[in-house]
Amino acid sequence: MSSKVLPISGFPEYLPAERIVEQRFLDVIRETFELHGFSSIETRSIEPIERLSSQGEDADKEIYAVSRLAGGDEDSRWGLHFDLTVPFARYVLENAGRLSFPFRRYQIQKAWRGERPQEGRYREFTQADVDVVDVGELSSHVEAEMPLVVADVFSRFPVGEFVIQVNNRKIPEGFYLAIGLDDVIGTLRIVDKLDKIGPARVAAMLLAAGATRDQADQCIALAMIHSADLSFVEQVRSLGVSHPTLEEGLASLAAVLTTGMENAPGRVVADLRIARGLDYYTGTVYETQLVGYESWGSFCSGGRYDALASDGRTTYPGVGISIGVSRILGLLLGKGLVRASRSSPAAVLVALNNDVERPQSVAIATALRARGIPCEVAPSAARFGKQIRYAERRGIPYVWFPGGDPGGDQVKDIRSGEQVPADAEAWQCPPEDLRPSVIRTD
Amino acid sequence: MSSKVLPISGFPEYLPAERIVEQRFLDVIRETFELHGFSSIETRSIEPIERLSSQGEDADKEIYAVSRLAGGDEDSRWGLHFDLTVPFARYVLENAGRLSFPFRRYQIQKAWRGERPQEGRYREFTQADVDVVDVGELSSHVEAEMPLVVADVFSRFPVGEFVIQVNNRKIPEGFYLAIGLDDVIGTLRIVDKLDKIGPARVAAMLLAAGATRDQADQCIALAMIHSADLSFVEQVRSLGVSHPTLEEGLASLAAVLTTGMENAPGRVVADLRIARGLDYYTGTVYETQLVGYESWGSFCSGGRYDALASDGRTTYPGVGISIGVSRILGLLLGKGLVRASRSSPAAVLVALNNDVERPQSVAIATALRARGIPCEVAPSAARFGKQIRYAERRGIPYVWFPGGDPGGDQVKDIRSGEQVPADAEAWQCPPEDLRPSVIRTD
Repeated sequence: MSSKVLPISGFPEYLPAERIVEQRFLDVIRETFELHGFSSIETRSIEPIERLSSQGEDADKEIYAVSRLAGGDEDSRWGLHFDLTVPFARYVLENAGRLSFPFRRYQIQKAWRGERPQEGRYREFTQADVDVVDVGELSSHVEAEMPLVVADVFSRFPVGEFVIQVNNRKIPEGFYLAIGLDDVIGTLRIVDKLDKIGPARVAAMLLAAGATRDQADQCIALAMIHSADLSFVEQVRSLGVSHPTLEEGLASLAAVLTTGMENAPGRVVADLRIARGLDYYTGTVYETQLVGYESWGSFCSGGRYDALASDGRTTYPGVGISIGVSRILGLLLGKGLVRASRSSPAAVLVALNNDVERPQSVAIATALRARGIPCEVAPSAARFGKQIRYAERRGIPYVWFPGGDPGGDQVKDIRSGEQVPADAEAWQCPPEDLRPSVIRTD
Repeated sequence: MSSKVLPISGFPEYLPAERIVEQRFLDVIRETFELHGFSSIETRSIEPIERLSSQGEDADKEIYAVSRLAGGDEDSRWGLHFDLTVPFARYVLENAGRLSFPFRRYQIQKAWRGERPQEGRYREFTQADVDVVDVGELSSHVEAEMPLVVADVFSRFPVGEFVIQVNNRKIPEGFYLAIGLDDVIGTLRIVDKLDKIGPARVAAMLLAAGATRDQADQCIALAMIHSADLSFVEQVRSLGVSHPTLEEGLASLAAVLTTGMENAPGRVVADLRIARGLDYYTGTVYETQLVGYESWGSFCSGGRYDALASDGRTTYPGVGISIGVSRILGLLLGKGLVRASRSSPAAVLVALNNDVERPQSVAIATALRARGIPCEVAPSAARFGKQIRYAERRGIPYVWFPGGDPGGDQVKDIRSGEQVPADAEAWQCPPEDLRPSVIRTD
């Protein structure tokens, strides 16, 4: 293998210390999803292209097709999945008879999109999804539960303050219908640009689409409403508009906010700008911003859809969120906001007195490992200064010096220089040193 | 999404309870690799096709090519990686300046091969690799260390007895040269068939390839030698053949056995039949069999190669092993030898007295989760019998009944029927019930 090696744009790879940060994030996500009673599944990486390309706008352009280089599977047109929702919907249909509903699943996997790479956007990336899916009907309380999962995950991340913005699709729908704007989706698409282009240009676009000045102003007034408590309800009412669908949406969003205020205080806000491809979401929708990094957009989004999957006879409604793991790491590692305390999982380097005594060092390592202490044996019997530098370069905090006879070992904390007698059958590694930690650097 | 759903042959997917078994295996592997001081990396799923197809026999036929469905990347010819060694070698070359050598890395990822699916063989599968790679020279003691990693992993698996078979490529090489068989690789390829076709047909093939009856007999006699201690050395010597390369191989294999006997007693045997694509391995080679399932072949294999990677100026020798995670699970799940104790990560289902009191149940769940106890709230305020059956179907061991006032809660172990007063701020979940366990069923 002597050919040229080059990175491939959009397919990021981490160095070991960065990977430790990624692992910590993935561990937190998994642990939290499991605390909330979600079962893990993984789906195959490929789906039939017809299934992938039936999903929404521009999907085709982004699909990576997969085929045997040597041919021989011409019947099968496959593509790499571009999200975890399409394969999950297929998995639910395929296994409906073997799953217990409501089915709470999480899925942490790579996905692929052939789009142009840019900051925070990759062609191979990791998503972490949770969804609850049921048969026929899905109880609305699940919509209130999702932000608790997100809040639990993000409050365990070393990312500082974050805010989960929630809206309900029925609020703008009812509101627009009540003020005489029948093209709900078209109106939403324009209002969705508020963050990017500002209220004046949104108003101009609404006017161009046939709205009156008053209708346009009302749409913008609605979208500007946000509150960390239930006051959004009064703010909407003060606009003097009423509609049954609007009332339904307000009641549902108030329930989500109430659950959030009680179980994740300060994390969940009602924000009536949030839109999220509202053509398939039918109820609550979610976005999550990191405070101070709003320009990066949402790192965790989702919502309720009344037809996650359908086999023609049975419909499976669901509510779900998706954490953009690669996007978060792209920000945190890209800007150097977090780092790992060391690049090796080893807490101890067992030094070598000389090559003949290697068996003694290996036996010490075996004893430490049997007690759950990650360690490695020095690669060569260089002088101790060099062995200590081997540990330093990897951030390994302790170097163990075999004494040659029982009771003669010593262990040195190479950060403080403190060196004490130690016994491999009894030494307690300080818990904070047992595994690498992830440190916020700002 | 109402189109037909079909499994794709060779791309296995698990149900939630099976996935729990897979997760447990992956956790054991990761934890053990880290105990031995290996750093995690992941590489992108794709490599340039030239890099993939330069690797050995028949590689081309098995490669899955990847390209944007919409075109636009005609310059890039990519394929999905078919193992983790090719991408690791490329990663080492690409990052050589940023890695610390000797570099101990592990890598647990999916790989893809377009071969015909059969029992224990998949087209999408998970491998778990550890390698140590160094610059220019790699100390031979690392070859003795690898079986300790394998033994540690497999002794934590619920797989019963296993045996790690070790050989050293220099033994047959020196031996063949000494008895006048100069085509070492050709001879090895024939002897490698011993398990499949037996000694008589191997002898016939050796004769057909030009060996004398005596040479053929000697080759077979060598390959039949195995021992769980150092007696293999005397057995080889008794064949009356000597060669410097043979002596080197015997000394190296004896060192591997000695380390194994001291640190993983009973797990490591010398077995001089083990060959493993000996055209690129240059020293120790490993295979791992599960006792009673020898016909499945090796579940963990590897060896030493003097040129894992090379950029033309610098060569990186390495030693590594690869655990066939999907193969092991294919056996254990396929034959029903293991199962998960439950299909949900939740240890507790918090019951609902009625819909109005849902906030109370959610608050109990929040308190339990804050103390690390996985739980979920019942989806609906059905009668308690139905809520208990919801827990039973998922194997959730405890149902929590909110009392309505402080001190009034009760928790029921639905396996024993025992029900006791409980406080969400203080209740201790028995540690063995906190997470699903994996149970050997035979």
